[in-house]
Amino acid sequence: MKLSELSEQSGVPIASIKFYRRENLLPPGRSLGATTADYDESHVRRLKLIRAMTRFGGLSVAAVRDVLAALEEPHSPVEVLGIVDYAIPADLPEDAETTDGGPSWAADLIERMGWDVSDHSPHRAALDARMRALHRLGMDWDIEELLPYARLAEQVAHLDAARIELPADPEILAERVVVFSTLFGPVMPLLRRFAHENQARGRIADV
Amino acid sequence: MKLSELSEQSGVPIASIKFYRRENLLPPGRSLGATTADYDESHVRRLKLIRAMTRFGGLSVAAVRDVLAALEEPHSPVEVLGIVDYAIPADLPEDAETTDGGPSWAADLIERMGWDVSDHSPHRAALDARMRALHRLGMDWDIEELLPYARLAEQVAHLDAARIELPADPEILAERVVVFSTLFGPVMPLLRRFAHENQARGRIADV
Repeated sequence: MKLSELSEQSGVPIASIKFYRRENLLPPGRSLGATTADYDESHVRRLKLIRAMTRFGGLSVAAVRDVLAALEEPHSPVEVLGIVDYAIPADLPEDAETTDGGPSWAADLIERMGWDVSDHSPHRAALDARMRALHRLGMDWDIEELLPYARLAEQVAHLDAARIELPADPEILAERVVVFSTLFGPVMPLLRRFAHENQARGRIADV
Repeated sequence: MKLSELSEQSGVPIASIKFYRRENLLPPGRSLGATTADYDESHVRRLKLIRAMTRFGGLSVAAVRDVLAALEEPHSPVEVLGIVDYAIPADLPEDAETTDGGPSWAADLIERMGWDVSDHSPHRAALDARMRALHRLGMDWDIEELLPYARLAEQVAHLDAARIELPADPEILAERVVVFSTLFGPVMPLLRRFAHENQARGRIADV
């Protein structure tokens, strides 16, 4: 396929493709003359991966190059999981995306869980933005699949509640909540990553 | 107390205290003359809160001002939780702190859970840095208190495993993992926040 078609199929603008070529992140196409080249499915796959790493993973070009180099070696799927998992920072900045007034995953989920959550919660829009982005990238989630996560989140919140005291002074309380949410909040995703790695290694052992 | 003592007790440098005074985030002390003022415990508390919000919560001075203004009104503890929770972004950038070779929470936890995790996992240092920061701020955690979180993280990882396919092509797999970790990963902390709010509202209803 031609450059324009590669851009269309991968969803990556031509200027970006040329940049990735210059940076040697994308291998050359088969030369069809001085100015044209023929690209194939392997280029589409590579571009999608580069895009995922830079756009969602927040990786620098140098970090992407390291991951791609690691993937060049023969690896089992589980090893690939490990390479990528170690490369992506555990905490990522919030996506700035806003809602477009479409159907709300958050509203459905909150209703199904019977939760009492303000309509003004900023976390509703944040959840919807993520679910929509996943949908656009071909990862569709049924609300039924999300519910088990919500039930586990509820158990985590119960552990938290047993841990956070409620001092009467609003400033002391506010300070405790900031410290707890910002420093302890990200501990859970780290534990999840350990559990992933442990599981992945178990899968090797099972084979 | 004098300015120097206020700085010592709050852990906030004098230059920063003066900045917070100019920005009107910190109320004036009782004037003792043209150049000296007397501060009390309320100033210490206020400074600790400002510090927690700017340093750990990543809030701008303007956002801190909004939270402080909201706290000026009389609020129940549960309402304070809500104000702070809505103000702090759900995803925060990783703390750049590194290990100092002290005792490792991660190592203890991984051993207690019987998990198989590489010594080279970058998430070990990340966990230790957070636990040490909490310790410095007076929030001490026993490993026993962390274990229930690890067990729930394991259940979350099981849900994830059922969800992530393992395509044979390493680039497709890597792309799926990046998309899943970066877009779906932060969904769990959002669900936890909903559960917190629901719980807090339940506490009001119980009173």
